[in-house]
Amino acid sequence: MIIDITALQQRFISIRENKTFETFVIAIIIVSALVIGAKTYTINPQVELLFKVLDIAVTLIFLAEIIIRMIADNSLKRFFSKGWNIFDFIIVTASLIPVDESEMALLGRLLRIFRVLRLVSVIPELRVLLNAFVKAIPRMGYVSLLMFIFFYIYAAMGSTFFSNINAGLWGNISISMLTLFRVATFEDWTDVMYETMEVYPFSWIFYLTFIFIVAFVFLNMMIGIVLEVLQREHEQFDRESGEGEAGEVHWIKEHTESMEQRMERMENMLIDLHKNKQSNTE
Amino acid sequence: MIIDITALQQRFISIRENKTFETFVIAIIIVSALVIGAKTYTINPQVELLFKVLDIAVTLIFLAEIIIRMIADNSLKRFFSKGWNIFDFIIVTASLIPVDESEMALLGRLLRIFRVLRLVSVIPELRVLLNAFVKAIPRMGYVSLLMFIFFYIYAAMGSTFFSNINAGLWGNISISMLTLFRVATFEDWTDVMYETMEVYPFSWIFYLTFIFIVAFVFLNMMIGIVLEVLQREHEQFDRESGEGEAGEVHWIKEHTESMEQRMERMENMLIDLHKNKQSNTE
Amino acid sequence: MIIDITALQQRFISIRENKTFETFVIAIIIVSALVIGAKTYTINPQVELLFKVLDIAVTLIFLAEIIIRMIADNSLKRFFSKGWNIFDFIIVTASLIPVDESEMALLGRLLRIFRVLRLVSVIPELRVLLNAFVKAIPRMGYVSLLMFIFFYIYAAMGSTFFSNINAGLWGNISISMLTLFRVATFEDWTDVMYETMEVYPFSWIFYLTFIFIVAFVFLNMMIGIVLEVLQREHEQFDRESGEGEAGEVHWIKEHTESMEQRMERMENMLIDLHKNKQSNTE
Amino acid sequence: MIIDITALQQRFISIRENKTFETFVIAIIIVSALVIGAKTYTINPQVELLFKVLDIAVTLIFLAEIIIRMIADNSLKRFFSKGWNIFDFIIVTASLIPVDESEMALLGRLLRIFRVLRLVSVIPELRVLLNAFVKAIPRMGYVSLLMFIFFYIYAAMGSTFFSNINAGLWGNISISMLTLFRVATFEDWTDVMYETMEVYPFSWIFYLTFIFIVAFVFLNMMIGIVLEVLQREHEQFDRESGEGEAGEVHWIKEHTESMEQRMERMENMLIDLHKNKQSNTE
Repeated sequence: MIIDITALQQRFISIRENKTFETFVIAIIIVSALVIGAKTYTINPQVELLFKVLDIAVTLIFLAEIIIRMIADNSLKRFFSKGWNIFDFIIVTASLIPVDESEMALLGRLLRIFRVLRLVSVIPELRVLLNAFVKAIPRMGYVSLLMFIFFYIYAAMGSTFFSNINAGLWGNISISMLTLFRVATFEDWTDVMYETMEVYPFSWIFYLTFIFIVAFVFLNMMIGIVLEVLQREHEQFDRESGEGEAGEVHWIKEHTESMEQRMERMENMLIDLHKNKQSNTE
Repeated sequence: MIIDITALQQRFISIRENKTFETFVIAIIIVSALVIGAKTYTINPQVELLFKVLDIAVTLIFLAEIIIRMIADNSLKRFFSKGWNIFDFIIVTASLIPVDESEMALLGRLLRIFRVLRLVSVIPELRVLLNAFVKAIPRMGYVSLLMFIFFYIYAAMGSTFFSNINAGLWGNISISMLTLFRVATFEDWTDVMYETMEVYPFSWIFYLTFIFIVAFVFLNMMIGIVLEVLQREHEQFDRESGEGEAGEVHWIKEHTESMEQRMERMENMLIDLHKNKQSNTE
Repeated sequence: MIIDITALQQRFISIRENKTFETFVIAIIIVSALVIGAKTYTINPQVELLFKVLDIAVTLIFLAEIIIRMIADNSLKRFFSKGWNIFDFIIVTASLIPVDESEMALLGRLLRIFRVLRLVSVIPELRVLLNAFVKAIPRMGYVSLLMFIFFYIYAAMGSTFFSNINAGLWGNISISMLTLFRVATFEDWTDVMYETMEVYPFSWIFYLTFIFIVAFVFLNMMIGIVLEVLQREHEQFDRESGEGEAGEVHWIKEHTESMEQRMERMENMLIDLHKNKQSNTE
Repeated sequence: MIIDITALQQRFISIRENKTFETFVIAIIIVSALVIGAKTYTINPQVELLFKVLDIAVTLIFLAEIIIRMIADNSLKRFFSKGWNIFDFIIVTASLIPVDESEMALLGRLLRIFRVLRLVSVIPELRVLLNAFVKAIPRMGYVSLLMFIFFYIYAAMGSTFFSNINAGLWGNISISMLTLFRVATFEDWTDVMYETMEVYPFSWIFYLTFIFIVAFVFLNMMIGIVLEVLQREHEQFDRESGEGEAGEVHWIKEHTESMEQRMERMENMLIDLHKNKQSNTE
């Protein structure tokens, strides 16, 4: 019996590593995505029935796939240690919940949409890209906090002074922050400004300083990411190939090491010669 | 007879390499471009006739030019091995199709407009620039795919939730993707948001997360290209001139090599001296 | 008595350095920020009373905190030598001014909003970020001046030619500058252009040259900051870790130094040997 | 008589180099700029008279200043060899033309506005900045040409297909190019697109490809400038200070040179020793 499970496991591992299996899963995800897209058009009942059948088929195939991968991994612990597996598991199991009840229908549809994201977890190149994004997030944390503080202060000022002028834009601090985000994207920001300038003629100072600060903070954010990506890619390039300036520097370093060892040998011989000579001449 | 063809070929090669011939072709392309531009203005019949004559003349000159270049190249295989030649050939032969029939008239006019692109294939500096663009395309492939997946998911969500609010903006998934592209360019995006916020007050989360993700993905795309161009230009600069830091590193590398050889000679002499000494003292 | 003060000072220093005290101050600032935000909503009188009490409490805690930090520092001179301390002192003392009088009420509310900025002075990571911004300001001085000159010239031209067309946009030089800033952010700039093009059909030259110049100056400004930040971060990285290309270059430099010293020793020995030999052979 | 002129010249050179004179000229330019700005406001006749007097005074002072600088320079050739001097000369002499005639009034006012640009020619830091801009122009030449070709092709397509839909936006090729520039700045571009999509439902392809191409070309333009500025600043930094990685590389290069010379000396001595030994043992 134990052998049976190991054999099954072995077989499932070979299925998981199989290129055709991978392509099949990608195809299923794309079919699932197309069904989601097609559903947004007005469709006749027959096609709708087909879509329902397809939806159930996709759900079952996903379930089978995840069970195969679970068994292929030796333990559940090992399976759930990878973030992408957890993501897949949630998407697949959540799809099993029946969505006919009007209450849960919306959530069910949302989860079916998120299935498209499985494309990212299946294609390795996309997984690498998304991992790079996730790694850059902590670096942007403090910059985002600083930006949020500036938004908060300007929103507080905005709703203090301008709430009587236009409650729809400056009614309270959260509406004001949304209005300021709009100003930051330059979306009809002059309409907002001209309105308040009628009451406070100097309120353009408020908008111009805000735009300068936000543009400045945002630029630094961008630069931070650029620098991080630059350094990481450069170092990787250093290690893998020996090309370019960095490669030449590395070559020089290694040859300097061998030159030093040769010099040490030479100096020792010279010392020996020198001593000899001195004892000779004595 | 064989000699005749070779002589003709030799002559055509000399024509092709001739600076005056190149300038003449550029002039013809510019004339062709100006005629295309002038046609968009309302013109009297006489000038229109002139334009028709000019159009035929340009087509014939282009045909003559491409035949000269075809014969100048030894074989058709060699001629069609260059992408730009294929491009020129399609543009020129397609112009030969008569455009008087109402059916093909539109296509014919389009092809005449694309003739202006021949300017890119004729001027070497522009060809280099466009080649750089083409080379950068594969690198952007996966980033574009990731961006498309995000657009698709958000469009699916958008048409699921908002299609009842404004069918013109969220009617189906393709309309929704166009609307999202509009949001990504910040073009009247608040009008779109305010409309859906009346029904779903928290739909601002949908727009703000979308803007952040797209801006982030787009920024990384830009950085990727910047890095690629940076590294390529830097390495070229390395090889051609010996200036700057990279040049100094290269200088050091070469001199380290000659130092190592000298040291090897010196060590050999020292070993010789040392052995001699030892045999002497023995 | 003298000992008492020193003991008190010692105690206050230990309070200041205490992690719990720091967290407590941050919590108070956040409470203060939330009160400011909550005030922008319509609130019933009871809550308003609570907010007044909270406001007084926050003011007193801030006062206590700044006095503790003042005494902890040996002298007032030392306390006021740090820019952030001056900033904190102004915010805290200005809050003590009663704000019930209608005259000063607005200023009082503004100062309470600026209290949120104390979050920047308390959290070290944010202080580092803001310091980086402040350092970049002088570098942008001349670029800003150049940009201002271009704005001024275009605004003078604008109000000279277009003031009769739309006094609301081009009435005088300051209104014109605001209009040009709007054009620089691409906010409904074509509406502005189409209006003046009806009178001066070639006024599109005015707008297009302006957009190109401003985009160009602005880009250079951005690049300047990028370069500065790049070089500063790179050099810091050089000193602290010995990784990457810069680390290898540093390693080579140090080993070149020790190689030179060894060579000097070797040359001296050789000179000695050589002299010896010559005196021997003579 | 000859001595007199030399003495005068010497005196004028000392005036030109004088810091107070420079400050005075800057002050006069700022006064001139303020007068230009003030004129855009509605002013009463008395102040207008004052402005006229000020204008004449500024013109005369500028004339005196340029004559001083002309005489201070040994020859007119030398004076006109500097671009900035030519610029100053044109601005100053053109101001001498009376502007009362209605014909020339506009040009005269324009020239008075351009006087503000003299601030750039007088302040050295601004002159350096503007020179950097001017240097970057040729590098952008071919990129601009490529961009223009794309604009031209899209404009030709636009006016061919869309001129019947909205002649105000696509009437002829020049109007179309202006419309496309508007699309490139994302200014109400969806209004333009939705209009043509009613007739040609697939015209969104036209707009989206255009936006992608322009954004791409523009980005490469930016990168080109960034790279150029980067390399130039880096090399200058190399030469002037010996800091950072580039400084260390330079240090290594110089020390490698001295090491090589020392090695040559050492090898010669070794060869000498070796020969000696061989002749000894023979």
